[in-house]
Amino acid sequence: MKFCSECAHPVTVAIPEGDNRPRYVCTSCGAIHYQNPKMVIGSIPVWEGDAMRGGELKVLLCKRAIEPRYGYWTLPAGFMENEETTSEAALRETEEEAGANVELGNLFTLLNVAHVHQVHLFYLATLRDLDFAPGIESLDVQLFTEREIPWDELAFPTIRTTLELFFADRRRMREGGGYGFHTRDITRPMQAPVEPD
Amino acid sequence: MKFCSECAHPVTVAIPEGDNRPRYVCTSCGAIHYQNPKMVIGSIPVWEGDAMRGGELKVLLCKRAIEPRYGYWTLPAGFMENEETTSEAALRETEEEAGANVELGNLFTLLNVAHVHQVHLFYLATLRDLDFAPGIESLDVQLFTEREIPWDELAFPTIRTTLELFFADRRRMREGGGYGFHTRDITRPMQAPVEPD
Repeated sequence: MKFCSECAHPVTVAIPEGDNRPRYVCTSCGAIHYQNPKMVIGSIPVWEGDAMRGGELKVLLCKRAIEPRYGYWTLPAGFMENEETTSEAALRETEEEAGANVELGNLFTLLNVAHVHQVHLFYLATLRDLDFAPGIESLDVQLFTEREIPWDELAFPTIRTTLELFFADRRRMREGGGYGFHTRDITRPMQAPVEPD
Repeated sequence: MKFCSECAHPVTVAIPEGDNRPRYVCTSCGAIHYQNPKMVIGSIPVWEGDAMRGGELKVLLCKRAIEPRYGYWTLPAGFMENEETTSEAALRETEEEAGANVELGNLFTLLNVAHVHQVHLFYLATLRDLDFAPGIESLDVQLFTEREIPWDELAFPTIRTTLELFFADRRRMREGGGYGFHTRDITRPMQAPVEPD
């Protein structure tokens, strides 16, 4: 931020009276321009159709057609917009990026990514049909079993964490558990895969 | 927003290429100024000391010294800042507004307030001691039993909803339940109290 968005005067960085941290302030009109974290919201679209016929559950991933992380795989997700709720944002992003028609379940993960000023939320979701197709921000959309997921080509640490927690809860469900709600703090970039001995 | 914060040129409202909703855009430097929801984060600071001696559990509330809702009661809460996690924000606001030293528990509520572009989160919290005191944004800080809470003088619908859900879970705990995690959409302003017949 270089100029005041209310009066076009150059902004200064200063601690306003009664505050305790530096803000962009306008010495001309007095406006204080607060900067706050943004929410990124998505879903974990699951296809259980095959599972019912003895096959494995599959998760829908999108191959990114935009930077950052062009060409890497992600769950459908994006920035929450004004005037919508978190679940409306999850449904919208799932439709926009994967063309997918889902029934939304409970909130599954809340992941702090403080170093990029973001909070990521992912909802459980069940695909109603297989009529999905890449939106303009996706190169491809595909269903993957746990083993098929391109674990080394995932776009963001929050995607990997959410998928790991999801499959861990699925394994626990065999002993009668259900899906939990999980919060995690992501404090560093995704680590490179460790080479096998 | 009237002027571009990058180049000071007046902004226009237009739908950028590849987008589907109106944004503040700069026709001079090309910047798109996205507006996104903000997170308000707080805690439910609980004193169980008396409960252990047969008394009732109490919740710490702050009387607001700032607008909006000056003079009304609230749980300690405020806007999340960049570079912090949601739980760090809850601890900071509890310290700043109530001078309270708490041990933070799990996330308890996520409340969408879409018409004001906000998402409110409240964490469970246990007071470590009774050395609390109003911060500069509070006129007063007091402990209340469920019956003592000034239900008609609460600052915001999300405060009422969080307190109602909290005491409902407490009642359920007598039958062996625990605290849940609750999501709600707040779609209208707090209703006026109904006069008794």
